[in-house]
Amino acid sequence: MNQASRAPTAAIIVIGDEVLSGKVEELNARFLVRELRALGVAVRRIEVVPDVHEEIAAAVRKASAAFDHVFTAGGIGPTHDDVTIAAVAAAFAVPVVRDSGLAGLIREVSGERFFERDLRMADVPEGANLIRGEDTRHSRWPVIAIRNVYVLPGVPSILQRKFAMIRERFAAAPFYCRQIFSRESEGAIADTLDRAAADFPNVAVGSYPHLDATDHKVLVTLDGRDEPAVVRACAQIVAGLGKAVVRVE
Amino acid sequence: MNQASRAPTAAIIVIGDEVLSGKVEELNARFLVRELRALGVAVRRIEVVPDVHEEIAAAVRKASAAFDHVFTAGGIGPTHDDVTIAAVAAAFAVPVVRDSGLAGLIREVSGERFFERDLRMADVPEGANLIRGEDTRHSRWPVIAIRNVYVLPGVPSILQRKFAMIRERFAAAPFYCRQIFSRESEGAIADTLDRAAADFPNVAVGSYPHLDATDHKVLVTLDGRDEPAVVRACAQIVAGLGKAVVRVE
Repeated sequence: MNQASRAPTAAIIVIGDEVLSGKVEELNARFLVRELRALGVAVRRIEVVPDVHEEIAAAVRKASAAFDHVFTAGGIGPTHDDVTIAAVAAAFAVPVVRDSGLAGLIREVSGERFFERDLRMADVPEGANLIRGEDTRHSRWPVIAIRNVYVLPGVPSILQRKFAMIRERFAAAPFYCRQIFSRESEGAIADTLDRAAADFPNVAVGSYPHLDATDHKVLVTLDGRDEPAVVRACAQIVAGLGKAVVRVE
Repeated sequence: MNQASRAPTAAIIVIGDEVLSGKVEELNARFLVRELRALGVAVRRIEVVPDVHEEIAAAVRKASAAFDHVFTAGGIGPTHDDVTIAAVAAAFAVPVVRDSGLAGLIREVSGERFFERDLRMADVPEGANLIRGEDTRHSRWPVIAIRNVYVLPGVPSILQRKFAMIRERFAAAPFYCRQIFSRESEGAIADTLDRAAADFPNVAVGSYPHLDATDHKVLVTLDGRDEPAVVRACAQIVAGLGKAVVRVE
């Protein structure tokens, strides 16, 4: 794969017993996958881990080393099951420290409803970056980041607002995509796909049986950052499939 | 945690570039989480990995060692991006062999629509278990399993039919659950929850802010296989929360 076509990579680590127990539907990874995709970032891993310090720390440490960007979602409130900050700090072997600016903000915002425990939300890994959006109407609360790890909350509406604060920094070159609908089964078209995948190593060729479709059997997808390569791979597959092609999008 | 309360654990490994690129909504992990939960199995990890041999093999090897059951979803068709069988075999350092029974079935079912490439679907890791359901109306195709790893397809309707063939073997003791709705914020109730979590180590205490709810601020959940412990933990939290309790379910 040539340098120009290499997309920045990302991993998403969802922290939450509630997802693993099926109590809540997982919305955050789905949101981040689409946002990052639109930005030209290739998500290479999604992991859902329980609210367990060691497991989060291990997942963060590994993902931080393997991918360009890492996003964690969940586990940053004031309760006993909110262990993400400590785990992310542990992943990089740094202590957790209380940020005085955040602590002041918590006291100010809470007013009479202040609880000592809320100050846990002012705790950050030592050396963390507190990223504030340009548009402070959106949030006075910064996104906490350390190295290439961005710590996001688990409540989907807040996660989305926070991500909006940092999304521009991930903008990369976009992906080019084509879809080919085939009336023949995967077995019938596999050789053609194999050849295209081998001939165009920087184009990702996907093949998905659509059992419930009436006008086609398989959706073939092509994706890459090298537009001419995507176009040529598409033409080669369309030629190879011949009459099997229902349509190209 | 005492022995009686230890639930069997499971990991789900979703294989698919289409999920990582946001092209399809992930339905299989969601389905398996709920099914396994209902069976009394605790899902401790969900991983979404790309269609890459080495990454699938590494994830399977690790999950097989760490959890009681492992389920893979996706990547078992006849096309170039279907690499799960080879990766699962590699995870256990066994070769891939062609199963003659499966090969015969493929030829028989395909009839005139037979393609040599379809025989790839008769390939299994050496030593694999081919599990057939009691009720063969549902499927003539077995579930391929090796050690504690069950290899399931990515098409949701087929995955669900396959899982129905094997689900009874995972039946364990059920979970007992309670939900407490609190009109106070997490900061206000965190001490009470901490205490309960410490006093009842075999009850999982969860705390989820519900920002959009009108009658409560936080949902507190209690889960465990030891019913009396769940009941006592619930009573302790309800007493601690006092007037903050909106209702208990």
